[in-house]
Parts: sequence; structure tokens; C-alpha cells
Amino acid sequence: MRSLEVKNRTSSDTIKSLRLITAIKTPYLPDGRFDLEAYDALMHMQIVQGAEGVIVGGTTGEGHLMTWDEHIMLIGHTVNCFGGSIKVIGNTGSNSTREAIHASEQGFAVGMHAALHINPYYGKTSLDGLVSHFEAVLNMGPTIIYNVPSRTGQDIPPSVIQSVAQNANFAGIKECMGNDRVKDYTDNGIVVWSGNDDQCHDSRWDFGAVGVVSVTSNLVPGLMQKLMFGGKDPSLNSKLMPLIDWLFREPNPIGLNTALAQLGVVRPIFRLPYVPLPLARRIEFVDIVKELGRENFVGEKEVQVLEDDDFILVGRY
Amino acid sequence: MRSLEVKNRTSSDTIKSLRLITAIKTPYLPDGRFDLEAYDALMHMQIVQGAEGVIVGGTTGEGHLMTWDEHIMLIGHTVNCFGGSIKVIGNTGSNSTREAIHASEQGFAVGMHAALHINPYYGKTSLDGLVSHFEAVLNMGPTIIYNVPSRTGQDIPPSVIQSVAQNANFAGIKECMGNDRVKDYTDNGIVVWSGNDDQCHDSRWDFGAVGVVSVTSNLVPGLMQKLMFGGKDPSLNSKLMPLIDWLFREPNPIGLNTALAQLGVVRPIFRLPYVPLPLARRIEFVDIVKELGRENFVGEKEVQVLEDDDFILVGRY
Amino acid sequence: MRSLEVKNRTSSDTIKSLRLITAIKTPYLPDGRFDLEAYDALMHMQIVQGAEGVIVGGTTGEGHLMTWDEHIMLIGHTVNCFGGSIKVIGNTGSNSTREAIHASEQGFAVGMHAALHINPYYGKTSLDGLVSHFEAVLNMGPTIIYNVPSRTGQDIPPSVIQSVAQNANFAGIKECMGNDRVKDYTDNGIVVWSGNDDQCHDSRWDFGAVGVVSVTSNLVPGLMQKLMFGGKDPSLNSKLMPLIDWLFREPNPIGLNTALAQLGVVRPIFRLPYVPLPLARRIEFVDIVKELGRENFVGEKEVQVLEDDDFILVGRY
Amino acid sequence: MRSLEVKNRTSSDTIKSLRLITAIKTPYLPDGRFDLEAYDALMHMQIVQGAEGVIVGGTTGEGHLMTWDEHIMLIGHTVNCFGGSIKVIGNTGSNSTREAIHASEQGFAVGMHAALHINPYYGKTSLDGLVSHFEAVLNMGPTIIYNVPSRTGQDIPPSVIQSVAQNANFAGIKECMGNDRVKDYTDNGIVVWSGNDDQCHDSRWDFGAVGVVSVTSNLVPGLMQKLMFGGKDPSLNSKLMPLIDWLFREPNPIGLNTALAQLGVVRPIFRLPYVPLPLARRIEFVDIVKELGRENFVGEKEVQVLEDDDFILVGRY
Repeated sequence: MRSLEVKNRTSSDTIKSLRLITAIKTPYLPDGRFDLEAYDALMHMQIVQGAEGVIVGGTTGEGHLMTWDEHIMLIGHTVNCFGGSIKVIGNTGSNSTREAIHASEQGFAVGMHAALHINPYYGKTSLDGLVSHFEAVLNMGPTIIYNVPSRTGQDIPPSVIQSVAQNANFAGIKECMGNDRVKDYTDNGIVVWSGNDDQCHDSRWDFGAVGVVSVTSNLVPGLMQKLMFGGKDPSLNSKLMPLIDWLFREPNPIGLNTALAQLGVVRPIFRLPYVPLPLARRIEFVDIVKELGRENFVGEKEVQVLEDDDFILVGRY
Repeated sequence: MRSLEVKNRTSSDTIKSLRLITAIKTPYLPDGRFDLEAYDALMHMQIVQGAEGVIVGGTTGEGHLMTWDEHIMLIGHTVNCFGGSIKVIGNTGSNSTREAIHASEQGFAVGMHAALHINPYYGKTSLDGLVSHFEAVLNMGPTIIYNVPSRTGQDIPPSVIQSVAQNANFAGIKECMGNDRVKDYTDNGIVVWSGNDDQCHDSRWDFGAVGVVSVTSNLVPGLMQKLMFGGKDPSLNSKLMPLIDWLFREPNPIGLNTALAQLGVVRPIFRLPYVPLPLARRIEFVDIVKELGRENFVGEKEVQVLEDDDFILVGRY
Repeated sequence: MRSLEVKNRTSSDTIKSLRLITAIKTPYLPDGRFDLEAYDALMHMQIVQGAEGVIVGGTTGEGHLMTWDEHIMLIGHTVNCFGGSIKVIGNTGSNSTREAIHASEQGFAVGMHAALHINPYYGKTSLDGLVSHFEAVLNMGPTIIYNVPSRTGQDIPPSVIQSVAQNANFAGIKECMGNDRVKDYTDNGIVVWSGNDDQCHDSRWDFGAVGVVSVTSNLVPGLMQKLMFGGKDPSLNSKLMPLIDWLFREPNPIGLNTALAQLGVVRPIFRLPYVPLPLARRIEFVDIVKELGRENFVGEKEVQVLEDDDFILVGRY
Repeated sequence: MRSLEVKNRTSSDTIKSLRLITAIKTPYLPDGRFDLEAYDALMHMQIVQGAEGVIVGGTTGEGHLMTWDEHIMLIGHTVNCFGGSIKVIGNTGSNSTREAIHASEQGFAVGMHAALHINPYYGKTSLDGLVSHFEAVLNMGPTIIYNVPSRTGQDIPPSVIQSVAQNANFAGIKECMGNDRVKDYTDNGIVVWSGNDDQCHDSRWDFGAVGVVSVTSNLVPGLMQKLMFGGKDPSLNSKLMPLIDWLFREPNPIGLNTALAQLGVVRPIFRLPYVPLPLARRIEFVDIVKELGRENFVGEKEVQVLEDDDFILVGRY
């Protein structure tokens, strides 16, 4: 189904050089559909404040709560509106090889610059199966592989990565297993993005990571840009830590969703099974914003402590 | 779900000025998936030879044989690769209002410049139902309505068009009911595209139509461009008539699919229920090409009489 | 994907003997989902009052407004709850051969007794294409073919039927082209169901039709049963005519939907593009009910003239 | 969308009494579609040899590699053909609450006797989110909740189960966290099925579990029936252990798929990302069968060591 159009070709090298990639939030309307106006505003903030890439429909963007047609549409929309200003990396991974193939074909067809692929979570497979899974999608275009055992229930061992790294489309790995693993890869010439905001400063400056795929940058893109580009800066890193700790007290993107609603940049709407953080946490967030400085956060409205009744949870959409 | 991005806004007036819109063919691979390389080549030929717009996934492009995710993907792909050079009009119509709403939302989200909407074929509805159907989609962006009773089993009467024509997004009508109907509209300031290649010359030059949505232009875009732009030209019109007659002896796009395969610009693959024209007709086509001049047709290969065995018919894909 | 389970096997001969088949209405909840409680009640009325078969998701049941998973679910539900008492014929036809294949495989897998297949409406195809389309689905199980040119825009000529009639699964044709066509078939040993309630009495008693696929029997199953089983009865036929005329003044199932809501057996909810008949017609219906006798109609509530505001029209569901 | 049909009502108490539930394998044709003939044969073996329930489309049945329409179809098919002889429990769980709601509604509509629900794997959520997720589906019918942190990345703590156990539809928990957890539940009156074949004997006879949801019973249903019904039998349990160890050396259902192919009861076809066990393991399996006795295994053919080339791996289907 390949297209040879120039507009559909991005080199792996271009992807390999990205330092700040934001796993962008997907905002919703009260009936659970996408809120594209809010999405576009979030994208602008990312571009203006220095993000070089976005993951569309990642776990942060709740790709697992989308139908595939919604997901591909959002990738196509992002490419069409912002593809000239930022690299669009579609999370077209799946625990079903068929779905990963189908979504990746469609994602590249609508112009995404790279794909993010996960190992088969929940269903899992053997190491041979992992290699077969990744090989089924690697020929389509630049690809980042994502390792997050706390979600998938299965570590992708370096041997599997070495095996698929021969493919010219392999751009690198988004790794959550810590900085020893990061170093192991970067010593061997494999490009790594930290998948943990709390470790990314050290990953980048001490362990050879090229950058980060960040959740926190949805909130403070400028500070995360500085953290990745401005040289070693343990002081900034420390200042960010309370925010990062707060964000990940419950499974992501629960904290992020709550925070963006409090900042007034998205409507306070959750697709189940996500529910907002409780009031006590929401009060904490206001304090964190004040501590770090409202001006460092996205949006212009005053940060608010939302009431329980302000939130809409949608199960059918 | 609205996006306010500049890249997603096209005015109805821009659409109203298009004279040559090609209802572009969708080519296939042997397993029935889209052949995007061939598609992109067809798109280039259209752009170079003067088409100003394309209908993606129209009846000619076999939108009714696509899943909606394929369909939206093809619209997004076309916008991404060619949207700067040609207007992309997605056939996001359906006999189901729900599907028409959903597809149009998605089509505009991925950047299509306008939607083509059909009245509910097969299921049909009352005149009040027709108005409700069109009103459900008109607010999303520039819209062309398509009237083809020989397919839908139901004429859209002028009263319905008058009623929806108030909407600023209404661009005009693709009309197949003949030149009296065309004149009736153009006398009243409603933009019309002829939906019949055999009538379009007269529609354009004698009855006020702005142009044509053409099937024939898939094959001879340059000649159709001349027919729409070059002034009244009954001689050219007559010269084209044998080709046009040949194309529509069986329901479109059977003739077109057969012709493009014979010209070597698409693989000889049909999604059922379409099957190629029989050998006798294929021989006739070679003669028609010689008569009109191979150089006027798309592609560079010699025109061929394909054998029955050359064709692949796919039912599962 | 074939199953050989006894429970999944019905002979074509069993299907060929059915005289009263109701094209059953699909009722909805206010959010547009199926109202299975109301549906089950309608099914009971059909069974008790003598219908021997139902078409699930026909044009009357608005199969064209369903997703395929809804459609197959409804077939499976009907088989599971009522398959011992009535023959379940799934409308798994489509203008896309792929969809017809897929839906028919699934429908037979969940136990439907026969499939109803339409020629490719809207997209249309050649006579060779028609044969290829029907052959692609006939091997799966007992099949009724449906000819309704006023909806499809294309007549299925007897030559096509002759060609597919050799298949042991071919049960017969639901024909809307009038009694001359009916006679042409029945003279040649082909089983015919009338597809027109206003002609079915004569089709059955004068032209050899085995019975009817009826819309009207949704309302007056007992009377339709008498019409098909009770011997020639022009008087009953005449008595029914005002109701039948009323039902088809707008494209079916607009009249039926309005009537069932007025009888209080379904909620007054329409999936667009269908909208209710206007008030004047609703008043007429009350008179027709009184004339024919409320006791002959389904349900127990008094017939009502509903107000415009009583109706809910849903476009997103 | 509720149906009140008697055929669609099963009490939670009926579900609570099942001792041997097989997580049934889904067999495939060479093109990746379901092989219903083989499936029906597997179902017969289960019924004849004493299984009282089946999980359709569980992780063993590769529900995560199905489209939802395939999945619901398989549930409907199983109910229709075997629902009178065995309880059909559809795995209509998902990490997306929307999908879990939709699939459960459809599964109950086509007659499944109970639903199996998983906590949101991969995406995960907070404890409040878990409760909201389960509450969104519990009202539809009898429900078993499944806890398998090695797949989901998140334990369902007893507090969450206590919270949802008030619902009359809560039948019990399929628990993989070991026998201390099992005892904790059974001491408190909560029904438990062991989710680990290697622990199920002890769970049943020493820790109060009602029975097992078994993978191994696909192969040796009679022995597993004896293990659950025949009284404490450490000798039988020990005899089964080599088979059970062999089955779970790679993530399930890799071992099971390989074994059933070697026994000649399913075609040697894998949907990716699953791939067969390597030759050395396949040789081991033949020895295990001989040791336990071929007559205790399903099927009648001689057990075979299949060659690598005998297997077909499908990625597109």
C-alpha cells in the first residue's frame, strides 16, 4: 500500500535527533468526542514553547480508549495542521499484530513521520514472537519501540532490540527500565528516549539519552525544553520534581488530565476508566503551580480547584 | 469536534469556482488493499493536466466498497500529499445520517476542502427527511450535494435544494437530471456541476453550469480540461463521445476500471461486485484510444487488450 | 469458517414453505440504541399471531442504519430467544460483496436460518457482476434474493435468477416488480414471495406466490396471516387497502414507525434520515385503526395522535 | 437495551456453582479466520468430558486478537449451538470502559450466561477508577472478575472486590495471585476460581475455591474434571504437573496452540504475535503425551512432532 510521495518520507535520522517529544493529551467534549479546538491550542503551545515532536494517541493521549478510526483521524489531523512545525509520531502499536500493521499502514499513509510500537501487552508472547511482531511493522517507516514493563507485564530485553535494530527504520527506544538500561543501549549506539520524567535529566546528561518522551511537558513545555537543551541543570530538575511526583501518584494520565482541567486549557471531561484525582490532590496542584510559577504552565487562566461536580465522566461515547 | 486551524478552512466560494473535478479512481493491490503508489501517480496526472479538484471515494472511486477507516485514510492521504495543488472533496455521504455525520467530521478534521453528500439511497426518506439529513452535515464545511436518481432511486427535487441552499456552506449541486434541471438551478443562482460527461459540454456552455464532476477525465484529463476551459467546442465534444459512450455501457466504474488497466496505469484488479468488461469491449477500447490518440490518455505504456486471466477479482479484502 | 452443528442447518425446503414472513421493525431507546424489550414484545406478537418467519434488519428494520456488529447481534439475539418458534432470516445483503460475505458468514454462525440478499444498490454492477455477487454468498446457506428496483436503481432480470437458481441454497425471490414477473417465475418452478403488501393477495392466490414478506404484518399480523392462509378473500384484501395505502405514502418504514409509536408498542424515536409522518397523517391513522378495529392491531394501549414534540430524532448514536 | 426474555436470564448462583470452566482455544483457518468446524469439535470434547462452562475469547482464546464483531459472533455461535449443554461465559472485558460496556451488552443480548471482566490492563487506572469501571458493566448480568497482575500490570486489591461484591450480579473472582489470596476471599464468602492450573488442586481442596478456569482442560478435560470433582488427589495432581509446566514455559496460549496442533485437533495456524514453540519443546510434548496416556488427551489422531514448515503464521486476517 506504499506511497512514494516525498511528503510521506521522513528519515530515521531526523527522528533520532529529537530531544523533546511530548506525549500529547487528547481533550474531550462533554459527549466524549474529541475537542479539536482545545487540541489545536495544546499543539500550538507545544510548538511555540519548543517541543520538537508529539506522540499522538499514546498512553498519555489515551489511544487505548480510541477507536482506530478516531486514532488515525487524529494523526491525520495533526499532520495536516501542524506537520510542518513538529514531528508527528503516531502510536500505532497494539498487542494485536494485525492491528499494529493496519494502523501503521494507515498512519504512514496520512503522513505521520514515525510510528511508536509497543510489545504485546496483556496477551504477551515469546521472545521469538516479539521479534516477529516488530518485524511485521518495521518496514513501513521510522519506528520507535516503547518498553514499559509496568504496563505491559513483560520487559523487552536488549537481545530483542539488538535483533530489530538492524532495520534501517529503527530509530530508537523509549525506555522506562532505568538509567543502567539506558546506558547499556547508548554505549552500543542505540538511540534512547527516557520514558520517565523523573529520570530524564540524568538519562540525557549522564547516560547518553538523546532526550525524553515527556508527560510533564504537556504542562510546562518551556521548562522541559530547557531541561533537555540547556545543559546539565540539577537545580531545575529538583524544582520540577514535586510536580513530577504529583503527576504520577496515580496511573498516568489521571494526574495530567486533572491538571490540564484545573489550568483551564481542557474541559474537565474524563473517558472512563479514568477518574479525576480527589479534592486533596487538586488543592496540592494549585500550590505546586504557585510554587513553580503560573507563567511556566500552559494556558492563561488562573489555576482552579475544581469541585467534584465540575467533572463529567463518560462511559458511552 | 470543530478545529479552527487555518489549514482546515476553505471557503465555499473557492469550491464554487472549480470547473474540472475528477471523480478519481481507487486502484488496488492483488489482495484488495489500496495501491497508493498507483493512486499517487493518477493524482499527479490529474494535477499536471489541469484538474482543479478530485472527489475521493465517490461512486467512481468505489467509496461504497471501502470501510470508513480506509475512506477517511484515503482522504487524509490525498490532502497530505496533494492538498496544496488540488482541492480534495471527500465523498462522506451515506444513506445513514449517522455515518454521514461521522465521516464528514472526520474528513474535515483530516483537512478535506469540501464534502460531497448524497441523498439516502436505497433506504430513502421523505422530503422532510432529506432536509433533516442534509442539515445534519451542512454546518461542518463546504458541501456539494449530489443528485443521481438512477442510483439512489429518488430524485432530490429543487424544493429541497432551495431549502438547504440558504446555508453558507452549500457550494452547489452535482446534477444528473439533465440540462433543463441544470438551467432551472443556474437561472436561480445555484452553482451546478454536470454529473454526466456526455452532457457536460452543453451544461457548461449553454446552461450555465460551472463545470463537471467527470469520470472521463480520469482517462483524458487534458481534453476534459479543454472542454471546460477552452470555450464552446462541439467538435471536441463529438470526438469524445465514442469514448464516453463506451465508458458508460455498464454501470460506472466498470468501464473506467477496465480502461485504466488496459492503459497500464493500474493493476487489473477489481473489488467485487465489479467485474471487467468482456473481451469484445476491451478490443473496442484499443480502437477508441488509437482514434483519439494515445498521447491524450494518461500513462505511457502501450494500450493492451488484456486477457480474462489477467484480471483478479477480490471478494474478501 | 463453516460450522457443521445440527443447530446451524436449515434446509432450503423449510424456507420455501413459509407463507407469512414479517420484515420486523427495530425499536430504539432515546439514545438511539436498540430497545430489546420492545423488540422482544414485537417478536412475541408475531409468533402468537401466526408469522412463520422474520426478516431481521431488512429495509423495514433499518439494517442500513445499523453498524454490522449491531446487525449481527440482533440476528443472534433473535435466534437465541425465538429461533425455536419462528424462522430467522437475516438481511445480510449489501452493495459491497465483501460486506455481504462477511455478514452472511457471521449471520449463519450465530444461527440464522436463511439470508436475504439484495443486488448491489447505488453502486450497481453488470449482469455478470450480479451473478458473481450472488455466487459469492450462496454457498453459505439458504438464501432469498430480493428485487426492488425502486430502491436499488437496477432490476434483477430473470436471466440472473435462472443462473443462480441452480444452487441448492437458493430458496426463492422476494419480488416487487409485479404479478406478471411473479407468474413468470412461479410458472418456472421458482419460489416467490411478494414484496408488495398491496399485491400480495393476488400474488398468492392468482399468480402462484408462496406468500409475502410483509411490512403491514408488523401492525396486523393476524389479518395478514388470514390473507395468506385463509383462501382467496378479496373482501379482506379490500378492507386492508386503506391501511396499506397509508403505510406507503412515504418511503417505508416512515409510516410503520409512526404507526407503531401511535399504537404504544415502540417509543416514538427515529433514527435519521427517517422522520415521522406529519400530524395530518397521524390523525388519519387513528381513523384507520378504528375502522379496521383496534383489536386487530398489535398492542393493548389506545391508539394515540402523538404531538410533534413527542418524537425524538437521533443522528448520533 | 435490556432484554427480558427468559432465555437471556441466568442467575449468578448458577455461575457460582461451576467447578470446571475451560478457557477454550479459538482455532483458525489458513487465512486467519475462525475454523468453526474445529471449534465445534473442541466444544463437544469439553461437554462430553465434563466441563461445565467455557470462557469464549479469553486470553487463552485470544480475544485480544479478535475484532469485537468476531468476538460477539463467537459468543453467539457458542450459545446457539452449545448453550443448552454448557455455560457460556463471554470475555467481554476490555481496558476501555466503552468497549467493555458495548461488548457486554451485545454478549448478553446474544445469550451469554455470564461475562468475564478484567481490570484495565496497560492503560491502568486508580482504585476509584477500577470501581467505576466494574460498576459500569455489573448491572448487565452475572459477572466474574479476573485478576492477573502478570498480564495487567496492576493487582486488583481485595478492597475493590469487596466494594463491587455487593452487586447481585457479582458471581466471583478468577484469581491468579496465589492461595493466600484465595483463602482470604473464601473465608469471606467470596467465590473464587483458581486461574493457575498448577495451583488449582490445592485451591479447590485446601483453600475453598469452587473450581478452576483452566487452560490445561483444553487438552485433558477428563483429568481436570477428576481433579475438581474426585476429591483430594495429590497423585493425579503430580502426574499433571509436567504437562502444566510445559504449557506455561512461554506466555499462554503459545504452549496450548502448539499442543493442540500436535494432537491434530486444530490446524497449525497462529495469529501473530504468537509463534509456535520450538522443535525441542515439541519433541518434549510427544513424550509428555505418551507418559500421561494418549487416551487422556482430546482427539483421536496420533500425536505428532510438527516441522517448522508445517506452521502458518498470519499477520493480516
